Amino acid sequence: MSLDTILARIDDDLPAATDRLIELLRIPSISTDPAFKADCDRAADWLVADLQSMGFDASKRPTPGHPMVVAHGGADAGDGPHILFYGHYDVQPVDPLDLWDRDPFDPEIQETPKGRVIRARGASDDKGQLMTFLEALRAWKEVEGAWPCRITLFLEGEEESGSPSLVPFMRENAEELKSDIAMICDTGLFESKTPAIVTMLRGLLGEELTITAPQMDLHSGMYGGIAMNPIRVLTRILSSLHDDTGRITVPGFYDGVPELSDALEAQWQGLAFDHAQFLSDVGLSQPAGEQDRTPLEMIWSRPTCDVNGIWGGYTGEGFKTVLPSKAHAKVSFRLVGTQDPQAIRESFRQMVQDALPPDCEVSFISHGAGQASEADTSGAMFEAARQALSTEWNIPAAYVGCGGSIPIAGHFQKILGTEPMLIGFGKDDDAIHSPNEKYDLDSFHKGIRSWARILDALT
Amino acid sequence: MSLDTILARIDDDLPAATDRLIELLRIPSISTDPAFKADCDRAADWLVADLQSMGFDASKRPTPGHPMVVAHGGADAGDGPHILFYGHYDVQPVDPLDLWDRDPFDPEIQETPKGRVIRARGASDDKGQLMTFLEALRAWKEVEGAWPCRITLFLEGEEESGSPSLVPFMRENAEELKSDIAMICDTGLFESKTPAIVTMLRGLLGEELTITAPQMDLHSGMYGGIAMNPIRVLTRILSSLHDDTGRITVPGFYDGVPELSDALEAQWQGLAFDHAQFLSDVGLSQPAGEQDRTPLEMIWSRPTCDVNGIWGGYTGEGFKTVLPSKAHAKVSFRLVGTQDPQAIRESFRQMVQDALPPDCEVSFISHGAGQASEADTSGAMFEAARQALSTEWNIPAAYVGCGGSIPIAGHFQKILGTEPMLIGFGKDDDAIHSPNEKYDLDSFHKGIRSWARILDALT
Repeated sequence: MSLDTILARIDDDLPAATDRLIELLRIPSISTDPAFKADCDRAADWLVADLQSMGFDASKRPTPGHPMVVAHGGADAGDGPHILFYGHYDVQPVDPLDLWDRDPFDPEIQETPKGRVIRARGASDDKGQLMTFLEALRAWKEVEGAWPCRITLFLEGEEESGSPSLVPFMRENAEELKSDIAMICDTGLFESKTPAIVTMLRGLLGEELTITAPQMDLHSGMYGGIAMNPIRVLTRILSSLHDDTGRITVPGFYDGVPELSDALEAQWQGLAFDHAQFLSDVGLSQPAGEQDRTPLEMIWSRPTCDVNGIWGGYTGEGFKTVLPSKAHAKVSFRLVGTQDPQAIRESFRQMVQDALPPDCEVSFISHGAGQASEADTSGAMFEAARQALSTEWNIPAAYVGCGGSIPIAGHFQKILGTEPMLIGFGKDDDAIHSPNEKYDLDSFHKGIRSWARILDALT
Repeated sequence: MSLDTILARIDDDLPAATDRLIELLRIPSISTDPAFKADCDRAADWLVADLQSMGFDASKRPTPGHPMVVAHGGADAGDGPHILFYGHYDVQPVDPLDLWDRDPFDPEIQETPKGRVIRARGASDDKGQLMTFLEALRAWKEVEGAWPCRITLFLEGEEESGSPSLVPFMRENAEELKSDIAMICDTGLFESKTPAIVTMLRGLLGEELTITAPQMDLHSGMYGGIAMNPIRVLTRILSSLHDDTGRITVPGFYDGVPELSDALEAQWQGLAFDHAQFLSDVGLSQPAGEQDRTPLEMIWSRPTCDVNGIWGGYTGEGFKTVLPSKAHAKVSFRLVGTQDPQAIRESFRQMVQDALPPDCEVSFISHGAGQASEADTSGAMFEAARQALSTEWNIPAAYVGCGGSIPIAGHFQKILGTEPMLIGFGKDDDAIHSPNEKYDLDSFHKGIRSWARILDALT
């Protein structure tokens, strides 16, 4: 049977596949920082070249931000489904750099007590993951000489910076990108071992606010006690965003937040989530969300509010008795159900405005806004993919939620009418967005094999 | 009369005196930042050389931090008082640098609608001020050939970074530094026009705290909603430091805070402080302190609490959905009366500890701690100096309070038994500790003349 040949080819090619991933990881494609613009471009070029070498009709497509990579293949494969694969080649910033054990962009294969890993920024999120399907497609083509169905690859370079160009690009190229299923590889195994298809994704709203009180920085000796300090205003406003039970206080925030269906609640209880281990892995013990919710609800099905950055005044060594003119914060909300990002943005801004004392001003910067999404799992392809995953991992695969925001899933549904299917192989200790990010070689290897099995099952 | 000759000499020498000040201002002696250690040393060397050129027995005296400059002269002047002059040659950091119109260490004489100014970091705080008495002493010596009394100069290089070496140095050199009066030039004119002797100074307590929640930075998609965010903890604690009336909530904080005497209250009412103008100069309109206190009380006789710096999470361009491990703040308290800095430090730390939710830790760094001080104005020298100032400025000089903390004043009283007298010529719009700091040439010129008159009046 040819699937076995393809899987054997994947096994044989693993060292070369790893080398290719290392090459891609060497490119510091940090999308949020303009200093790395050329590197993002370089990562896109690398992918285009790799896809062309496999026989795809691949090209780098300009946007006002970082380019998209789009590739097509298998146009003459007959009447199987048209399958799209989505991943992102951009990565998170690396600060605090001093907490990395080595250069984040000098990847290394390391032996660990839990197995071999490849360590670098982007190893798990998302370069290692997106390369799983490139490698599966490469092996398939090498063994079979052709792909089994029409295939499109759609690789983004702005996922870590709010995807500003994504929606316009999808709208402008909707006909080209429409497909029967959109495979998104940017999620993880459940509890680091159970293969999982994410069917519920939180949305994300990002806001940045700057409070200005005096027009200039002042000496707190001269003005302290009479002049309003913007940090005092900012901390008061931010501390009012949660009540004592962990509930978020933005007016109207919970509009559109659904309760779990009985079926899903039962399934999640069956997952026996070890939240104590999940928390103790990062030095915590107490779930910090709404106190009347289960840990899985807190991370999968309940909305959140977090301050992701705060700064103002003197932050260097020593002390400076400055009474600053401005104080800043970056605030994000994870959204669920039908919560409306724009309505929450407006309500948040109004709440901040209403809380401003005299003489203070606030300005806002809009960062990304994406609604939550939930997959329709009733089609046959979901069950076929679940079976393929179960076979490869030898563990029944699960339908799970995901606390992260992958707005692309909702965009596929709304803009293209294409059902997204989220399958990924990350582990909880991959340290994505953190120092010393890694991807298990086992995730990489079985991930590639999983895609070959899924491709076989769907065609 | 020789005073007239000395004053004329000061007038003639003003261009050269200005050039000397510019030379000193070119040295970036930022004491709080270790990167500028050599520059602090260079500023001390410059002062030693200048004092030696006038005939002082001057030397640079090492400390564990930046050196002191000590100089003696007039040992054979007979039985007049022994007068000590204190100033500091170190300066504040310059950030935010992008708000400066020019290099902070490339001084320039500028014409402004309010007269000529010299613009540079340290122009007013405190290099321009300390040079006023060096120039007065230079002119005196040039005209008279000798000083009229025993004179000591004591110039510090750590005033802007909490003066860690000051108390040990004063203790070790107490016999050498004891004098009949200590003239401190680090204050301003009242309302930018009335010459003033500061008789009441607030103390200062500086604290830095770091809240740690998770052991590492986390992805808010994976952990948001279940993991405690240290910024949430920090903002909640900082926002609890003031109640709704502006009163500070640290337990025991108001122990030792006195009410004004009737006499001082009456004198301050006579000063007719234009607080609306004072605030509108910096873009504000509402006094932000304790709502049952007058504006002058807020800045002179009431204690304060300000966050001078806050930082945590991602603060660069764009957005990063990080859930940080740590959040930090620098907090200072201005103290009055007999408030005990150490007791308040302990109470503050206990209050923070008590407010910590589960899984959070806090660590503290102690910055400077100095008690408030009040001068004994009953001696004849205060009235003589007040008269001399009134003559030079042609406005009756006032005894005033000062919101800033000049711990040296208390140290002179407590360690040396020497009464401090605080006279300075800064203006409210000097922008000390802010971008585009300046010193009026009029302050510089009349300041030099004032010291000559005071020296004449006291001897």
